[in-house]
Order: sequence, then structure tokens, then C-alpha cells
Amino acid sequence: METSREIERAERFFSDMRARTLDDPGITRASYGAGEQIAHDMMRAWAQSLDLEIANDFAGNLYMTLPGRDRGRPVLMMGSHMDSVPHGGNYDGAAGVVAGMAALERMRRLAATPAMDVVVMAIRAEELSWFPAPYIGSRAAFGLLPADHVDKVVRFDTGRSLGAHIAELGFDPDAVRAGRRHLDPARIGAYIEVHIEQGPHLVAIERPCAIVTGIRGNFRFKHARVLGEYGHAGAVPRTQRHDALLAAVEFTHGMEQMWIRREAEGQDLVCTVGEFFTDPQQHTMTKIPGEVRFTMDIRSYDEAVLTQCRAELEHAAAALAQARRVQIELGEHTHARSAVMDAKLIALAERAAARLGIDAPRMASGAGHDCAVFANEGIPCAMLFIRNEDGSHNPHEKMEIGDFAVASRLLWGMLDEMVA
Amino acid sequence: METSREIERAERFFSDMRARTLDDPGITRASYGAGEQIAHDMMRAWAQSLDLEIANDFAGNLYMTLPGRDRGRPVLMMGSHMDSVPHGGNYDGAAGVVAGMAALERMRRLAATPAMDVVVMAIRAEELSWFPAPYIGSRAAFGLLPADHVDKVVRFDTGRSLGAHIAELGFDPDAVRAGRRHLDPARIGAYIEVHIEQGPHLVAIERPCAIVTGIRGNFRFKHARVLGEYGHAGAVPRTQRHDALLAAVEFTHGMEQMWIRREAEGQDLVCTVGEFFTDPQQHTMTKIPGEVRFTMDIRSYDEAVLTQCRAELEHAAAALAQARRVQIELGEHTHARSAVMDAKLIALAERAAARLGIDAPRMASGAGHDCAVFANEGIPCAMLFIRNEDGSHNPHEKMEIGDFAVASRLLWGMLDEMVA
Repeated sequence: METSREIERAERFFSDMRARTLDDPGITRASYGAGEQIAHDMMRAWAQSLDLEIANDFAGNLYMTLPGRDRGRPVLMMGSHMDSVPHGGNYDGAAGVVAGMAALERMRRLAATPAMDVVVMAIRAEELSWFPAPYIGSRAAFGLLPADHVDKVVRFDTGRSLGAHIAELGFDPDAVRAGRRHLDPARIGAYIEVHIEQGPHLVAIERPCAIVTGIRGNFRFKHARVLGEYGHAGAVPRTQRHDALLAAVEFTHGMEQMWIRREAEGQDLVCTVGEFFTDPQQHTMTKIPGEVRFTMDIRSYDEAVLTQCRAELEHAAAALAQARRVQIELGEHTHARSAVMDAKLIALAERAAARLGIDAPRMASGAGHDCAVFANEGIPCAMLFIRNEDGSHNPHEKMEIGDFAVASRLLWGMLDEMVA
Repeated sequence: METSREIERAERFFSDMRARTLDDPGITRASYGAGEQIAHDMMRAWAQSLDLEIANDFAGNLYMTLPGRDRGRPVLMMGSHMDSVPHGGNYDGAAGVVAGMAALERMRRLAATPAMDVVVMAIRAEELSWFPAPYIGSRAAFGLLPADHVDKVVRFDTGRSLGAHIAELGFDPDAVRAGRRHLDPARIGAYIEVHIEQGPHLVAIERPCAIVTGIRGNFRFKHARVLGEYGHAGAVPRTQRHDALLAAVEFTHGMEQMWIRREAEGQDLVCTVGEFFTDPQQHTMTKIPGEVRFTMDIRSYDEAVLTQCRAELEHAAAALAQARRVQIELGEHTHARSAVMDAKLIALAERAAARLGIDAPRMASGAGHDCAVFANEGIPCAMLFIRNEDGSHNPHEKMEIGDFAVASRLLWGMLDEMVA
């Protein structure tokens, strides 16, 4: 495949940004930190070179606009985030902003004026490694960030509040606190986010990119526990035990059985018990465990599946607790809504893929993305995934520029139809 | 029931011993420590008051002998240990020695001269809380303690060797090191150990005492682990995961299924996974676990069952590892042989119980006892369990003196037949 000027520029941009935010191993671009700001400054320079309209909102998100023929029409937006986890990879987030800019660069080269404004948004603070709150930048743009976040949400490494970090960069924490909207959902016709895949699926099936069907929501139990009764490992008969471990084990095995069954029925679901432990202060080899603590992370892009799973797990816990004479406390849970991608945009992406001879399968996104905020505001959304070896959130992340080029061609194919 | 003089003396002895070894909460009688020595000194005084022959062996075990009519006949022994866990209960071990002494007291009161010598042995160092080696006193009496134990086995709290502790009390570590035998199995016709039950079985079935059928042996895996691969909780599909937790969960659930099945087939078996944990340094709610560590303690009084279980578990681990694409390393295991009680002595105990109207069911001992050392030396052995609430190895241990009296009457019934 011939390499276009836009892809060459994107590759140079990636390489420069990597050099300037290097933090061996990998790169570091902290939310509202030096590395993220470097990336935003580089984007701004690119936008200036294309003579785009450039703006920031009060939370520091960056908007780069190619004006359209009819400036009153709802705009077409593309974007993603520029921050990274500590010692992360160069592409998680940034690839989507770069893809958007490469698309605008191509329009400029072709001297094409789109039907409506086309906006690339470089979003702030998406990674959860810095502030313990999801989607800070995109939620702030829509006036959706809870007011108390500005002062109460604190960056792990600096110990300073989100508001202090926003102010430090010259933006306006008061406007965020007041819940002012920079973006009006009614004024956005579509939002498209390109992102590297964070799992191994495209590597496994040997495809360069995919069309995302939905972003998984989740419910999470962070403090589940089983309380039984400690006892002598040799002397207490099976039927008189209150074994917290075997109860937690049966519960967890049941969760996996539920997963396998629902998957076989065609439901989208992933289940993870990430932490699971007997009490290190009390457990020994020769004592029946009296307590087990564990976490549960259940994801699906279908809210109905999430609701059913939660009910099924709570029911199983109650039945098991009674049968095994232990207490099972799943505890409080958090819920992040899933987001479904727009059916018309998926169809449009598939038409473009067919036209261009690109084999882009459908797949769900297991991880969360800013796109979920746009979709849940009622904006028609699409996402494209780029194949990526070794997962994300680590220095070994490995997107090939050839795969980025294929995804960009698919994006251009979509845009050609949308902005005509 | 009328309270006999012997039971009153036993009750006084328990009460005095408790007062003199109090270590709130509970009592402490460390192996080769001050509390154990106080208990031995008290026993010696009791034996002197009965004009018994008194001796120690080189490991400090105490022998109190009522001479029989034929001093050449194999002797009848009774006994148990006098040490306790830290902040333990007053009866674990001591009740068996006291029961033996009460039986001799009764023979003296009745002016009965037994057919053969009747010996009560107060055994040293049975509890594993002090030295990390089982049955130190009884094994040393038979010359069975490995030579290196004397210098290499160290008390947890003092940091000093077993040999140093033996020497400190005036006994002879060189003789232990040389493997000298104080007891000759051919010279012991029977060994009877009375002990509090360490589990809740007799409380549950509302019986004051039981006739033990066997002492469970065990095999133990202290360092089992499952190695998988850490991964993103949302983005890695089920079939591409190497989830160490779900593999360890299925293995453990399978262990329980094996237990239920074998128990239904009438096999004696108890299985405990006492420790089970994902890696606290690496686990988080949103990461697929890459490592789980766990322990396994499998007990049965049937050696064949133990051997079959080990093979079955190892086979299951290998099959699961392959199916789930993880490593399962059960690691090294220790093995303690089970011991079967003598069928003739069990029958004799049941005859005595029937004669005396005592409802003493049969049951297996889940915990290990010195009696296992005697049984595995080929000596016909019996054990009687006394009902005991709240388990052992804790300050809440609660043997009722009325239950001790019932077990003593059963013991006396056995002795009446054996020494006639």
C-alpha cells in the first residue's frame, strides 16, 4: 500500500511525541501534567499549520475545527484523549486524536470543504491512574462532572485537587464546578473515536482493525466477602463446617458457569474476580477459613444482561449462604452504563470497509472510552479499533503504523460519505 | 451420678494447674517451658502421694508406675501430653494424664494390684506451636526422633534449639541425638490415651464421650500455586484468558466434590484449603489474576484413601492446567501416617460401655495425637474422647467435669477387664 502524506505526518507526530514524553520504560503523560500538556501543545501546532480554528474549553479540552459549508449544521466530531498511564504506551488515546488530525490534513490537501464543521477534540484526563474519577475531560465538556469532584478528587501523585491542576494550566475550575456546558449534544451530529484495541482479539484473529458495536458498561463489587467460622482442619466434620473459602469458591465457580452459559446464548459478557483472599492475619494451613474477601467486575455492552447478571449473582449468593450456613455480603456496587454505537454509523462503516476492501469485523469494547459519554448524551457514535499487540497501559504496547493507516483509510471512507 | 474421690481430686488438680499456669486469656504451658514443668512437678507430687514408682527418660518424659503382680508381663500404659498452645485451654493433653492418674488413684483406694505394671506417662512437647516438629516427646521415648532435630529444631519464641531446652531442664540431649530407646514396643501390652475432642462432634450429637476408631493421617501441600497471565479485565475474551483464579477455584471446587463423593462411599476424609490468595502486590479489581497461592490439608485414617486422593488431585491439577492453559504447581507435600486403633481394645471399650450404660459412639480423630506414635510402633492402642465445647487450642475450651467423670468410668471399666 502506498503511504500517503497524512500517514507520514502522523508517524512523525507519534515519533516526536514519544521522544518528548519519554519516561523509560515507556512514556508518561499525566492528566493535567507536563506530558499531557506537551501533547496538547504539539496538537495545537499541527492545527495551526493547517489553519484550523482552535479553541479550549474551561477544562482544557482542545478543539480544532475545519469550517464547513453550512456552519449552522450539527458538527461532525472526532477525538480521544492525550493522557497516558505512568510508563504507558504512546498510542492509547493519542492514536484517535492523531487519526482525526490526519483526516483533516487530508481534507486540506484535497481542498475539500465539508458540508458541516468537522472538529477534532483532544480530551483531557481519561486515564484512571491519576485522578480516581472516570472521563473527567469529556464529562466536564458536557457540564456533567459532579461539582464536588473539582475540590475533592485529588491526583494520586501530587496530592493536589483536580481544580488546582485545572487552574495551574490557566483554565477555569469555577466553570467546571458550576456545571457549565461547552458542548451541546444537539449541536453534534456524530462522534467518531479511533482507539487502539486494549485486548488481544485483533491479534488473535489477524485483522488490522474493527468496527466497535458497543462499549461495555460494568457493575463492580469492590468489597464482597464471605463470613464463616474458623475451625480445626482435622476435627470438624464436613457437614458441621462453616467454611468461608469453599463457599466463596462455589460462588465464584457459579459465576463462571453463568458466564459460559450466557455467552453460549449469544450474550456479551466478561466476568473477572481480580482479588480473592483468605485473611492473612488469621489463615493457616490447618484452620478452616472463617473469612474470604473478593472483588467482582462484570461487564457487558447490554444493560439488560448486566441487570440480569446482578440479580442472578445476588440470588446465588443468598441461596449459597443458606445452604452452607455462612454469610455472603456482596456489599455496595458501582455501575457504569454501557453505550451502544449507532446502528446507522456501523452500517456506514461497513459499507466503507466493503468499498475499500478492508476486512474490519465487528467487536465490543471491553474497556471504557470517552465515546461512552457522547453516546449516553444521545449523540450517534462510532468507534474503530486498531490492532495492538501486548495490550495497553504498559510500555510494550505495539501498534503498527500500517494498521493505523488501514484504520485511517476506513475513517476517511466514512467521512467522505458523511461530509459530502 | 455420685462423684467419686478420684474425680474430686482430678477436679482439684485441674483447678490448681490452671491457677499456676494462667496466662490471661487462658493458660500457657510451653513445650520444655515453665508451664509444662509446673504441670510435670504437680504430677510427680501426685504420684508421690500414691507411692508410685517415678522415673524420667532422657527427653524428660515422666513415668509413674503402679507395680503389678507379674512385673515381667508387658505393661499397660496410659498417658498424654502436658504442654499447651500459647493462651490455650487447660484440658488439651492434660486431661489424659489426669485420667490415667485418677485411674491409679482408684486402684490404690480399692487396694487392687493389677496383673501387670500400669504406667501413666506424662509426655513432653506435643503441641506444634513451640517447635516445628510433631510428637517430640513420644518419638524421643522410642528413639525415633531424627538426630538432626536436636540441634536444628528451634523453639519459635526463644530461638534456642530443642537440645538446649532439654539440657536446660537437666535431661540428656545426647541420648536423644543418639536415638536411644527408653520404651521397647515389645514391653508394652497396650496404650490408652484419653483426650478432649478438638471438634464439635460430641456436642452436636449430645454424647459425653466417644471411642476412637483411628487417628487421621494427612498429606499437606503448603506451597501450591497456579500461574496464569495478568490481563485487562474488560478487554480479554474468556477463551483467551489464562485466569489463575478461576483455575484455582475450579480445582478447589473439584477437591470438595471429590470429598463429598468419597464420603458418600463411606470413606473417612476431611479436606481443608486454609490459605488461598491472589497476589496482594499485583492484584486489582480490574485485572485478570495471574497468580494464586493456596494450601491443602487432606486427612483420613485410611492410608489407602490418602494415597488415592493425592493421585486424584494431582491428576485433576494436570488436566485443569492443560484445559485452562495455566500452570498448576502443587509443590512439595508432607505426609503424616494415619493410625488405626486396636480392634480388640475397641470391642473391649464397647463391652465396658454397654455394661456401664454409657452411650459412647465410635468416631475418628481428626487431629494427630501421641497415640499415633505408639500405634505405628505396633502397640495395641485405644483412645477415648471427652466432649468439649468451643474447640481446643483456644482459651474458650470447655470440658465439663461430669463428662470427664463419664470417660473415666469407661476407662476404669476397660482397666478392670485388662488388669484382672
